[in-house]
Amino acid sequence: MLNLPLFTMQIIVILTAARLVGWAFRKIRQPQVVGEMAAGILLGPSVLGWIAPGAYHSLFPSQSLGFLNALSQVGLIVFMFLIGLELDLQVLKGRTSTAFVTSPTSIIVPFSLGVLLALYLYPHLSEEGVSFLVFALFIGAAMSITAFPVLARILSERKLLRTELGAVAIACAALDDISGWMILAIVLLLARAAETSLPFWATIIGVGLYVIVMLYPLRKLVIRIEMYYEQRGEITQGALALILVFALGSAWITEMLGIHALFGAFMAGVAMPRKRNFIHALIEKMYDFAVVFLLPLFFAYTGLRTSLGLLNEFALWADAGLILLVAVAGKFVGAALPARWTGMSWREAGALGALMNTRGLMELVLLNIGLDIGVITPTLFTMLVIMALVTTFMTSPLVEWIYFRRLAPKGEYQPTAPEVVSPDEVDEALAVE
Amino acid sequence: MLNLPLFTMQIIVILTAARLVGWAFRKIRQPQVVGEMAAGILLGPSVLGWIAPGAYHSLFPSQSLGFLNALSQVGLIVFMFLIGLELDLQVLKGRTSTAFVTSPTSIIVPFSLGVLLALYLYPHLSEEGVSFLVFALFIGAAMSITAFPVLARILSERKLLRTELGAVAIACAALDDISGWMILAIVLLLARAAETSLPFWATIIGVGLYVIVMLYPLRKLVIRIEMYYEQRGEITQGALALILVFALGSAWITEMLGIHALFGAFMAGVAMPRKRNFIHALIEKMYDFAVVFLLPLFFAYTGLRTSLGLLNEFALWADAGLILLVAVAGKFVGAALPARWTGMSWREAGALGALMNTRGLMELVLLNIGLDIGVITPTLFTMLVIMALVTTFMTSPLVEWIYFRRLAPKGEYQPTAPEVVSPDEVDEALAVE
Repeated sequence: MLNLPLFTMQIIVILTAARLVGWAFRKIRQPQVVGEMAAGILLGPSVLGWIAPGAYHSLFPSQSLGFLNALSQVGLIVFMFLIGLELDLQVLKGRTSTAFVTSPTSIIVPFSLGVLLALYLYPHLSEEGVSFLVFALFIGAAMSITAFPVLARILSERKLLRTELGAVAIACAALDDISGWMILAIVLLLARAAETSLPFWATIIGVGLYVIVMLYPLRKLVIRIEMYYEQRGEITQGALALILVFALGSAWITEMLGIHALFGAFMAGVAMPRKRNFIHALIEKMYDFAVVFLLPLFFAYTGLRTSLGLLNEFALWADAGLILLVAVAGKFVGAALPARWTGMSWREAGALGALMNTRGLMELVLLNIGLDIGVITPTLFTMLVIMALVTTFMTSPLVEWIYFRRLAPKGEYQPTAPEVVSPDEVDEALAVE
Repeated sequence: MLNLPLFTMQIIVILTAARLVGWAFRKIRQPQVVGEMAAGILLGPSVLGWIAPGAYHSLFPSQSLGFLNALSQVGLIVFMFLIGLELDLQVLKGRTSTAFVTSPTSIIVPFSLGVLLALYLYPHLSEEGVSFLVFALFIGAAMSITAFPVLARILSERKLLRTELGAVAIACAALDDISGWMILAIVLLLARAAETSLPFWATIIGVGLYVIVMLYPLRKLVIRIEMYYEQRGEITQGALALILVFALGSAWITEMLGIHALFGAFMAGVAMPRKRNFIHALIEKMYDFAVVFLLPLFFAYTGLRTSLGLLNEFALWADAGLILLVAVAGKFVGAALPARWTGMSWREAGALGALMNTRGLMELVLLNIGLDIGVITPTLFTMLVIMALVTTFMTSPLVEWIYFRRLAPKGEYQPTAPEVVSPDEVDEALAVE
């Protein structure tokens, strides 16, 4: 039974915490979204449940979490669609030789290191019954993710979006995310093969058919919506409904095929026609409500499943540290070294390594899926969430230090303007970009 | 446990049905929203469950409905806030003597007839343990509601919004809705008095305090948000979050006080500063997503609880007919006669009677609350839902017949333009109005 006052109060507390912590993080020059991720952890068993267990258990009793999850899943489907929408593959077109070399290595190196790490983690931190193949692929994917939206936001806030560094970073992040998701799709197919009645080859054919249908007949349909928009000059309610059904339908099909609903929502966004006005109008209609209202619920739900109390031995903290180290090293080595070799200065190459290290919310999405399908244990989930938060948190100061201070040309020391950029301005910059 | 593919599929089916039936209804010159209400009934046990019980039970198994309810409740809180936002009490300022007389009678007459009807219905259609006072007040309130948003939409589609008829109708509908909700608040206080630990006088003081706090300190706060908007020229994400927390907080307080969350959401909307630009920008940010995505879920949830199969005797259908008759007669007599006496022509007075008869979705909201708190039985709920749908459905053709055909001045026969007005155009017209 839905307890409406409790549900309302949960949403109030989550929204308020997200804004307050987001605001505090902006003061220390972190993107708003990093603060919102931290707010989720604060509301979970790790902090609120530890400091005030009474308040925690009356605010988030376990039987009430299903409703929060339902709302956050819907929010996430909408949000992944918007992420797909923002992911403009045009950025890959004009890429320089640096991007050409760096993109693959910034996936292959962290992925390989992740697989090596999995060799060590598998015996004591995998869920029972999970094969090493599935586990290693998942850890590899978790190491390879770069949060496209967080990266874009940081680049925009630091006015780096139009520099070569920005262009390479965006191109690499786009490719890394797509690759990470592809690997996750394979993980899901393998991990769920036992559950579904479909034979594996049928699933593969199904996925192939899905991609073809998305790319051809359905794309024709959404292009018609876009043409209708051009005529009308606005996105009508009917068009919005059609687009939502398109995104939800794509999510449903991928879920039924054994890869995840969020994958389909993301693909639906990628498949939308890319005329700037149309994308901008569509984002305008959905973005703020989804980001302000629905996304913090996902962070909170993630936080509620993250329990630092599970890391109750020194050895487990050491494992968490190792995971963090491998994650950072993989992205730095995989992105900075090839960038340097192909002609970037150490300053730019170092900043690129720092930028690619942003795991952000995409990592949280992937980790939640891994926990849901039972590939990772709650303990490993907690370690990986720490890794995601720390790598995301360290990006801004690292870029500041490497690019704007330590390695900036002599006499050209430029402390970046300490202005606090509002999230809206960033969205604006990105949407117009 | 949340079944994500099922949940996604439910939303897909509901959105698609709402758009398709809404579109079909627009073809027969009904407002979109009437079609969406009908779509909800079609998906429920009355139609889908009767024609295809297998499909119905696999699409809407009872254990899955809680999640749908959670999402629809959130949508309804947002929507009631928007309704409060659109309800501009300025319309009451310039009202003519007709509006002055008609407003009270269009509440008092249907309410009194409702109480009389309750005398007959109480013995065989009330929930056990409900006092006659509570039951009679509820039926009275159910008869008094006029759907402000549906009415505004019909007036706008027929280009009547700026006529005297339109002004009087809007003023009366605004007053009727507020009165209906006040009566419902009393019903809720009485019906829930036994449940809550608060003594009755404490609740009354609490409600008084709530109203004072809403009208004074909190209103100052939201006026500040509006001033911030004036400076920035846009509603930032932070401002949107604050406004959402304001609406949810108001909803939570009224729920805790024993009146309903939706009442608080509505009041929060009414309490917002009324500068047109600001209201327009705010509606722009939230309206389409709420109306396209969340509102159909509420209609579907209502439809799932409406079961024509419960009316399995002729006597029950006769009761449903009687309820419908009383509902129509109450609004017609209460609105048209006084309008005629105070100087309107029969043509205008008749059209006013027809317009005030629109019960629309406000009635469905009220009925769902009545069913939730156990004042009415599922059977009576079904009868009242039929009444709400039929009275809403008959409004457009009746206005057409009375105002534009039967009683239109000779030689001035104007078939209204058969154009299909898009919902967006109507919203536009209303927002600018």
